[in-house]
Amino acid sequence: MKSFLYPIINPPFFTWVRPESGKGSKVHEWIQPITALTDPEESKNAEVVILGVPLSRSSISASGASEFPEAFRRSWRSFTTYNLDEEIDLSEMTVLDAGDVPMHVTDISKCHTNIITASGALHHHFQHSKICAIGGDHSITAMMVKGMHLKNPDEKIGILQIDTHFDLRDMSDNGPSNGTPMRNLIESGVVEGSNMYNIGLHGFFNTKDLKQYADDKGVNYFTLRAARKKGIEATVLQCLEELSSKVDTIYLTVDMDVLDIAYAPGVPASTPGGMTTEELLEGVLAAGRHPKVKAMDIVCLDPLRDTLVQPTVKLGTHVFLTFLTGVMLRQSASK
Amino acid sequence: MKSFLYPIINPPFFTWVRPESGKGSKVHEWIQPITALTDPEESKNAEVVILGVPLSRSSISASGASEFPEAFRRSWRSFTTYNLDEEIDLSEMTVLDAGDVPMHVTDISKCHTNIITASGALHHHFQHSKICAIGGDHSITAMMVKGMHLKNPDEKIGILQIDTHFDLRDMSDNGPSNGTPMRNLIESGVVEGSNMYNIGLHGFFNTKDLKQYADDKGVNYFTLRAARKKGIEATVLQCLEELSSKVDTIYLTVDMDVLDIAYAPGVPASTPGGMTTEELLEGVLAAGRHPKVKAMDIVCLDPLRDTLVQPTVKLGTHVFLTFLTGVMLRQSASK
Amino acid sequence: MKSFLYPIINPPFFTWVRPESGKGSKVHEWIQPITALTDPEESKNAEVVILGVPLSRSSISASGASEFPEAFRRSWRSFTTYNLDEEIDLSEMTVLDAGDVPMHVTDISKCHTNIITASGALHHHFQHSKICAIGGDHSITAMMVKGMHLKNPDEKIGILQIDTHFDLRDMSDNGPSNGTPMRNLIESGVVEGSNMYNIGLHGFFNTKDLKQYADDKGVNYFTLRAARKKGIEATVLQCLEELSSKVDTIYLTVDMDVLDIAYAPGVPASTPGGMTTEELLEGVLAAGRHPKVKAMDIVCLDPLRDTLVQPTVKLGTHVFLTFLTGVMLRQSASK
Amino acid sequence: MKSFLYPIINPPFFTWVRPESGKGSKVHEWIQPITALTDPEESKNAEVVILGVPLSRSSISASGASEFPEAFRRSWRSFTTYNLDEEIDLSEMTVLDAGDVPMHVTDISKCHTNIITASGALHHHFQHSKICAIGGDHSITAMMVKGMHLKNPDEKIGILQIDTHFDLRDMSDNGPSNGTPMRNLIESGVVEGSNMYNIGLHGFFNTKDLKQYADDKGVNYFTLRAARKKGIEATVLQCLEELSSKVDTIYLTVDMDVLDIAYAPGVPASTPGGMTTEELLEGVLAAGRHPKVKAMDIVCLDPLRDTLVQPTVKLGTHVFLTFLTGVMLRQSASK
Amino acid sequence: MKSFLYPIINPPFFTWVRPESGKGSKVHEWIQPITALTDPEESKNAEVVILGVPLSRSSISASGASEFPEAFRRSWRSFTTYNLDEEIDLSEMTVLDAGDVPMHVTDISKCHTNIITASGALHHHFQHSKICAIGGDHSITAMMVKGMHLKNPDEKIGILQIDTHFDLRDMSDNGPSNGTPMRNLIESGVVEGSNMYNIGLHGFFNTKDLKQYADDKGVNYFTLRAARKKGIEATVLQCLEELSSKVDTIYLTVDMDVLDIAYAPGVPASTPGGMTTEELLEGVLAAGRHPKVKAMDIVCLDPLRDTLVQPTVKLGTHVFLTFLTGVMLRQSASK
Amino acid sequence: MKSFLYPIINPPFFTWVRPESGKGSKVHEWIQPITALTDPEESKNAEVVILGVPLSRSSISASGASEFPEAFRRSWRSFTTYNLDEEIDLSEMTVLDAGDVPMHVTDISKCHTNIITASGALHHHFQHSKICAIGGDHSITAMMVKGMHLKNPDEKIGILQIDTHFDLRDMSDNGPSNGTPMRNLIESGVVEGSNMYNIGLHGFFNTKDLKQYADDKGVNYFTLRAARKKGIEATVLQCLEELSSKVDTIYLTVDMDVLDIAYAPGVPASTPGGMTTEELLEGVLAAGRHPKVKAMDIVCLDPLRDTLVQPTVKLGTHVFLTFLTGVMLRQSASK
Repeated sequence: MKSFLYPIINPPFFTWVRPESGKGSKVHEWIQPITALTDPEESKNAEVVILGVPLSRSSISASGASEFPEAFRRSWRSFTTYNLDEEIDLSEMTVLDAGDVPMHVTDISKCHTNIITASGALHHHFQHSKICAIGGDHSITAMMVKGMHLKNPDEKIGILQIDTHFDLRDMSDNGPSNGTPMRNLIESGVVEGSNMYNIGLHGFFNTKDLKQYADDKGVNYFTLRAARKKGIEATVLQCLEELSSKVDTIYLTVDMDVLDIAYAPGVPASTPGGMTTEELLEGVLAAGRHPKVKAMDIVCLDPLRDTLVQPTVKLGTHVFLTFLTGVMLRQSASK
Repeated sequence: MKSFLYPIINPPFFTWVRPESGKGSKVHEWIQPITALTDPEESKNAEVVILGVPLSRSSISASGASEFPEAFRRSWRSFTTYNLDEEIDLSEMTVLDAGDVPMHVTDISKCHTNIITASGALHHHFQHSKICAIGGDHSITAMMVKGMHLKNPDEKIGILQIDTHFDLRDMSDNGPSNGTPMRNLIESGVVEGSNMYNIGLHGFFNTKDLKQYADDKGVNYFTLRAARKKGIEATVLQCLEELSSKVDTIYLTVDMDVLDIAYAPGVPASTPGGMTTEELLEGVLAAGRHPKVKAMDIVCLDPLRDTLVQPTVKLGTHVFLTFLTGVMLRQSASK
Repeated sequence: MKSFLYPIINPPFFTWVRPESGKGSKVHEWIQPITALTDPEESKNAEVVILGVPLSRSSISASGASEFPEAFRRSWRSFTTYNLDEEIDLSEMTVLDAGDVPMHVTDISKCHTNIITASGALHHHFQHSKICAIGGDHSITAMMVKGMHLKNPDEKIGILQIDTHFDLRDMSDNGPSNGTPMRNLIESGVVEGSNMYNIGLHGFFNTKDLKQYADDKGVNYFTLRAARKKGIEATVLQCLEELSSKVDTIYLTVDMDVLDIAYAPGVPASTPGGMTTEELLEGVLAAGRHPKVKAMDIVCLDPLRDTLVQPTVKLGTHVFLTFLTGVMLRQSASK
Repeated sequence: MKSFLYPIINPPFFTWVRPESGKGSKVHEWIQPITALTDPEESKNAEVVILGVPLSRSSISASGASEFPEAFRRSWRSFTTYNLDEEIDLSEMTVLDAGDVPMHVTDISKCHTNIITASGALHHHFQHSKICAIGGDHSITAMMVKGMHLKNPDEKIGILQIDTHFDLRDMSDNGPSNGTPMRNLIESGVVEGSNMYNIGLHGFFNTKDLKQYADDKGVNYFTLRAARKKGIEATVLQCLEELSSKVDTIYLTVDMDVLDIAYAPGVPASTPGGMTTEELLEGVLAAGRHPKVKAMDIVCLDPLRDTLVQPTVKLGTHVFLTFLTGVMLRQSASK
Repeated sequence: MKSFLYPIINPPFFTWVRPESGKGSKVHEWIQPITALTDPEESKNAEVVILGVPLSRSSISASGASEFPEAFRRSWRSFTTYNLDEEIDLSEMTVLDAGDVPMHVTDISKCHTNIITASGALHHHFQHSKICAIGGDHSITAMMVKGMHLKNPDEKIGILQIDTHFDLRDMSDNGPSNGTPMRNLIESGVVEGSNMYNIGLHGFFNTKDLKQYADDKGVNYFTLRAARKKGIEATVLQCLEELSSKVDTIYLTVDMDVLDIAYAPGVPASTPGGMTTEELLEGVLAAGRHPKVKAMDIVCLDPLRDTLVQPTVKLGTHVFLTFLTGVMLRQSASK
Repeated sequence: MKSFLYPIINPPFFTWVRPESGKGSKVHEWIQPITALTDPEESKNAEVVILGVPLSRSSISASGASEFPEAFRRSWRSFTTYNLDEEIDLSEMTVLDAGDVPMHVTDISKCHTNIITASGALHHHFQHSKICAIGGDHSITAMMVKGMHLKNPDEKIGILQIDTHFDLRDMSDNGPSNGTPMRNLIESGVVEGSNMYNIGLHGFFNTKDLKQYADDKGVNYFTLRAARKKGIEATVLQCLEELSSKVDTIYLTVDMDVLDIAYAPGVPASTPGGMTTEELLEGVLAAGRHPKVKAMDIVCLDPLRDTLVQPTVKLGTHVFLTFLTGVMLRQSASK
C-alpha cells in the first residue's frame, strides 16, 4: 500500500496515533502524514508540505543531522498549535508531511539526485503550498533549490540565508558538501550571487578567500553585528524588499549554526557569539510573512549531539512553527 | 475509529510505518499494533500480547519509568527478529501491541484500578497468549496479577521475581507504591507467600523487618550471591520446578534494579553489586521456556535517567525479546 | 525531640553545620532551621520563613521537582549573603527554614491537604513574615494560597504569576495537576480571575481554549513579547499597582518554565524563546519590594534533569535571594 | 560550641536530621556525627570511626576527590543498615563520624601535616575502634599511616593495597603526590617494603622502573590476572595470613582506580581491564573480617567526574559498608 | 617538507612533543610519527606501523568513528609502555605512525580507493612490519585487505573477525557500507568464505538471510555464548590453528561493537549482552601472538558518543597495546 | 634539542602539523610554537606571545583549569584567522606559542615562583609583544603581573579586571589562592588599589568585608548592572581612559566566571545572572585596541566540567582571538 509520492519519497518512519477520544490541540495531532489513503488532488490544497531530508554524510565534520527529521516529528508532542503572541491557531491551516527522501548509504551523489527529484516532484504537485525541507546538512539546500528550479526554469529564485558561514566553498575541493550550497547554486546558474542575502556572519568562521568570492559574485551579506545594529527584523525586511524587486520566488534557508552555542548545543559547528533564539525567531517570522517566500529549510541540527532535554531539537521545531505563523498571518492579512 | 479494546486500553502513541518496499527483518516491522482494523477473533491466535503500563507517579523516589513503554517501542528498530544463538526467528510468532492502560494524573488509585481492568480484559480475551506488561514502576505488578486473578479466581498463581528488593513494604505506610507489590498480593489473598520466589537480593537495600515478614509468610528467596553459587539458570529452574508443583500459572516479574548500576544507569534505584546483563538474560530465557509462565512484566526502567546511547532501554527490550525466545523454544520443543 | 511545627511540618532532611570558628558569610551559615530548640514566640520575628513542598507526582509529565527543596538547601553554600548591586547584607534579616510538608507516596489528595494545612499553620503563626514555598510542581500553588486563605478568609488575595503557561486547565480531566492551579483557585472562589496577573506567556505552549477561559474569567496577562516591549520591571510594577488597588495581599508564583531552555535545562517543560535570567531577576526584585507581596513560591524545577554544574538549581536559589533583596530594600526604605 | 576533637578535626559540613517519628533503618539515620554533645569517654566504645580527608590538590592529574567525603555522607540515604547476604544488621555497631581534617588551600605540606595529626589523635583516643579514612587522593594514605605510627612507634604496620598502580613514584620529583604513598612509607621507615601487599596491578599503567623498585624493596604484589586465577578472596586471605605473621597491625587501602572504568566512571585515573565490583567487594569483605586490620581508607574517587546517577559514589559507600560487614562478622564470630 | 609516504598518506594532524628532559615512559613519548625527517630505509625495521583511516560517512547509522584516529593518538598519554602482567616493555619495539589516509568529503568511492592504495603502499614498503589500521567504520576492512592482497596476489589471506555482526550484507543494496566488508571480500574473490572466522555473534542483531549466506559460503563462526563455553582464548586459538593450516596470512579485525554496551558506550551500534573487556583483551592477546597475523584493525569506535571520561577510547587504545604485547611475546619466544 | 626558553618554559605538549599541501586558513595552521628551531632574535618581532599556565591546584574549589592550555590549543582547529566583522586577517600578525610554565605537583609556592620567572623572562625577551597567559586559575594573575613588574620596576602597572568577584581575599587565611590575586598585588606593592578597575561584579558572590577592603584601598569597580546601564564598551573605555592617565602599562585579566552560567558551563564557579558572550567580547575587543594594554590572561576555565560540545573552551579561544583583533585594529589604525 503505497502513497502517490512513492518511490520518489518514502513515508515517515513512524506516525503519531490520533487520540481515540477526538481531536487534540497538539501539533502531532494536527499535521497529517501523506499515506496511501491520501487523495492526491485534495492534498493540493495544503498550505504547507514538509519533506524530511535525512542526509548528513555529506557534512565536512561528522554529523548526525540525518536524525533530525525523525527527532523533529517526535518533538511535535511538546507544542500546541496555538500561538498566543499572535492569537492565531495554526491548525486552521492544512499541513502535510510528505515523508523522507530515500537515501543511499555510500553514494552521496545519488542522495543529492534523489533530493532534486523529490523537490521537483513536490513543487510540481503542490503548486500553491510552501515546501519546508527538514535537513540534513546544508548541502541539501542546493538540491532543494535545484528541484524547485527544474519545475519552472524561467522563474527567478532568490535566497535569504540565515547562517554563520558563507557556504561558498569551492566544490572542486571536496564536492557538494555542506560548505558549498551557495556556490553550487551560483556555479550551476540556478541563482545569481546578487540574489543571495546572508544574515548572521560573525567571528572567526569564514576565510578571506570566501569573502572575496562573495564580493566578486555580488552576494549580499549582513554580519550579525551589523544586523543587530539595524535590528534583525528590519534587516530581514530590507533583504526581502530588495529581493522581491529582483526575483519571482524566495527560498529561506536557516542554518542552525547561526545560533550562539549556548542556545544550540546540538549543532556540530555551533559557535560562541551567535544569534539568540529571540533574534532568530524574529527573523523567521518576518520571512514567513513575505508572500514570495515559497520554500524554506532548516539544516545542520544534530540531535545526537544535543543535551538531555533536547533544547536544540525543540528550537528547530519552534523555528518551523514560527515560519508557519508568518505564513498564516500573511494569509489572514491578505483575506 | 476505535479498536475493540478501547476505552479500556488506549492505542500506542505512535506506530512504526512498514517499509513500502515489503517486509523487513527488524522488530518494529514485525510487532503489530491493535487498531480499529484488528479483527478481535483473529487476534486471539497471537502468541504474545504487549501492554504498556505508563505509571510511575506511584514510585517512592521520583521516576520517569512512565516513559518506558514509548522508549521500548522506539528501540525496536535496533533489533532484528532473528536470534542467532538459538537459530530461531521470532517473526514466526504473532506478537500484538495492545497499547497503553489509560492513566489519571492525580488519582493513583484510579490508575491502579485501570491496570487491573486492562489486565483482566486481556487475560479474558487472549486466553492462549502470553501477556507482557511494560512498566511503569513495580506497583503495577500487583495490579497486573490481580487482573489475571479476576479472570479465573480458582487458578493458583505463583510469582518468580527477579529483584534487588523484597517489595514487601507495609502498605499502611504509603499505599500501594513500588515498594509493596508482593505484600499487596499476599495481603489481598491473591498469591500466597510460599508461592513467591525472589532471586537477586543483595547488598544493603532491604531491612531486617522485611526479611522477617518474608520469613513469616514463607516467601522463598535466593540472594544474588547464593544464586550465583548455584548458577542463575539452575536457580531459576529450581524455582520454576518448585512453583509448578504448587501453582497453575506463573507470573514472571523483572525489576530492572536487580542489575548492577554499571549495566543499568537508567534505573532510579540501581545499585552497585547487582546482576550482570548476561546473568539476567540467562534467567529470563529459562523462565520464558517454562510452559506455566503465562505473563510477565519489566519494571522500574526510567529512560529519562539513561545515558546518551540508552543502554538500559536497549537492555529492557533485550529482556523482552529473550523472554520471547524462551516462549518460542518451548513451542518448537512441544511440537 | 520535636519542633513546635511537628507533625504538620517535618524538619529539613539535613542541616548545615556552623563553622566552629565563628559566623561565616555564606547563606548556609545564616538561614536557621526550625528545630526542637527553636523558641516559638521568638521565631515570630522572622522576616522570612521557608517551607519545602517536595511534591511532583502531581505533575503531568514525569518530574523530579520533589527533589528541589533539598537541592535548594544544598546550593546555599555557593552564595554569600551580601548583595553588591544593592549594597545590602541579607544576614541582617532573620530567615527560618521550617522544613518540609510531609507527603504521601500514593495519595496525592492527601499531599495536597497536607500542604493546605502546613500553609495555614505558617500563615497563622508567622503573621508578619513572608512565607516562601519551595516546590514541587505548580499544583502546590493552589494549596499554598488556599492555606493562606484559610487563615483569614476575609482578606482578598491577588496573584502575580510569572509563567510560560496559563495553568488554567480543566480539573475535571485530571484533577489538581500542575496544569490547573489558577483555575483551581478561581473555581474554589479563593481568588478572582480578575485578580490574577500572568507575565511570560509565549510560543506554542497554550491552547486557544485556555485563552478563552482566561478572557472569560477576566484573568490579566502579558505575553513575554508584550512585557519585553514595555520592560519586564515596568510590567511587573503595573501589575502590582493594579493588584494593590484591588486586593489585600499578593502572592507571587514563579514557574521556572518561564525561562528559556538555554537558561533552565533543569525544567521538564522548559521551552525555547523564554525569559532570560536577567529579565526574571529584574521582575522578582520588583515584586519583592512591594509591601503587599506576602508570600511566594518557586516551582517546577527538577534537579534530576539539570546539567552537571546545576545551573538551574543555582538560578532557583538566586531567584529566592533576589526576592529577599526586594524585601529588605523595602524594609530599609520604610524605616 | 565545639567538639572535643576541634580544632584538630572539623565537624562534617552537614548532618542528617533524624526522623522525628523515631529511629529509621537507613545508614544516615544510624551513623552519628561527633559534636559538642558527644561524650569523649563514651565515644571510645565506638566500633568504627570515620574521618573525612578532603584533599586532592596533591593529585598528579586534576581531581575533585576532595568532594568525596561530602558525597559519601550524602549517599548514606540510599543504603539500609541491613546486609541480607550475611543476615546481620550493622546498626548493632556504633559508628561515629569524626568530621573532616582541616585543609589549607595553597600549602599542601600543611594539609599533609594536619592529616598526620588528625590520624594520630584518632588512633590515640579511639584505641579499640577501626579508623576509616575517606579520601581524598592516595597521598593521604602515607599520612594516615604515619599518624597511626606516631601513636605507637613500636607496633609493626603492614599494608594491604588494592590498586591499579604501585604508587611507588620517586618523591624527589614532585613531592608526596598520589603517586608516592607507598614509597613515602618505605623511605620514612614507617612500613617495610616486605610488609606491603598489592593486589590489582594490570595493563599499561606502571613503569618498569617502579617494578624494579618494588622488587628491590621486597614489596609483594599480585597482578589482577594472577589474583583472578587464584581467586580474589583467596589472594586477599593469603596476603593477610602472610602479613599477620609479620606485623602487629594491618592497614587496608582501597584505591578506587583498581576498578574497571565501566564500573567506576568517577575516578580520574580509571582504566579499562580492571576489577569488577563483585571482585572488589569480595576482597574488602575478607579484609574486614581479619582482626589485625585496624584501619582502612578509600581514595581517588572524584564525584565531580561521576555520571548522573553517581554509580561510583554509591560504590565507594558500598565498599565502606562491606568493610563494616567484615568487622561485624568477625565480632560475632569471636563472641 | 613532505614525508616519503606523501601524498598517499597524510601526516597525523598533530604530534606529541618529546619531553626536553629526556625520554619518558609513556606511549606518546615512544611511538614515532613518520615525517619528512624519517629515513625510508631505516623505517623498514619497524615492528609495527599504524595507519589512521578516518572514514565513517560510509556507516549505515550516523557515526563519528572518523574521529577515532585522532582520539586514539591523544589517549596515548594515559598509558605507559610497560606491561606488568607479561613483564615486557613495548618500547623495545619500534612503532611508527604513518599518519592518515586522505579522505574526500562527498565521494566515498574515492575514499575507499585511497585506503586500498595506502594499504598497498604500506604492505609494499613495510614487508616485515605488522600493519595496524585505526578506523573508521568497518567498511575500511575490505579496503585494507584488498590493499594487502594487491601487494602479493598469490598469498592466501584469512580473516579473524571479532564482531557482533556478520557484516555480510548485500552490497547491491547500499554499496560498500560498514555492514558489508566480509561479503565484499568474498564477492571480490580476495578472501574465501571458508577462510573467515567470526567470534562474538549474539542477540538479535543479525538476520536469518545473512546466516544463510554465511553458511552457503562456508564462513566459520562462533556465537559469543559458544565461545564463552569453550573459553575466548581457546576459541581464538582454535580459529588461528585452523586458519594457519589453510592460509598464508591472517588479518585480525576488531569491531568494537562486539563489546557489551556497558563497556563501550562510545560505539554507535553497541548492544547489551556483548563481550566484557577482559574477554576481548584475552582474545586479542592470543591473536597478537600468532606469527601469521600480519595486520589488524580496530573499527566502529565513535569518540563523539563516548562518555565524559572516554572509557571506549581508552579501551580502543588498550586493545591496540594488547595486540602489540602479543607481537612482542611472540618475538621474545622466537628468539 | 631545546628551545631558548627551556627550562624556564616547557614546549607545548603537542603541536599541530602543517598541511603538506601548503598553508591553510585555520588558527592552528598559523600560530607557531617556539621550538629548538626558533631563532631567538627573530622571535622578538612577534606581535603576540602565548604562555600556558597550567596551574589550578591553588583553586579554592576543585578545578581542572590546569587543562585549559591544552584544550585551548586543540580548539584552534575550529577557528579561521579571518575576522569578518572587522575585515582583518589575524594571520598578518606573528603569534608565537612559548609553551607552558613548568609546574610542581605538591609545592604550589614553587609553581607560583616559576610563573613569576617565566613571565619575567618573556617580558624581558619580548619587549614589544603582547604577552597572553592562558590559565590556570586566577592565582596566576598576581604572578604574571609580578613577573612583568620585575622586568621594569619603575613602570606603573594598572589592571582591568573582568570578573564576578573582587578576588581580594585575605592571603593570611589560605595563601595566594584564586580568591586573592588583586589583594596579593596591592599588599606586595606591585599595583595600587586605585589603579585597579573591576567590571562585572554581581549577585551574591562577594562579601561585605571585601567590598570594604576594596573601598579602603580605592579599588574602582562597576557592577554588571551599572556597566550594562552605561554600556559594556563605554565602561571599558572609561576605565582604560582613567587608567591610562595614571599608569604606564595596563594588564587585562578575564576571569571566565564573569559569564552567565548558561554561556559558561565549564567554569567551576560560574553563576546565574552574569555577562553574555556578546558583552564579554565587546569589552575585550575594546581593551585589545588600547595601546597601553600590554598583557592579558584568561583564567578559571575548566575543560573537564564543560559540556559535550565544549562551548566554554571555544568561548575562551574566541576571547583570545577577539583580543588579538583589537591589537591588530590598533596597529592598522596607528600605521
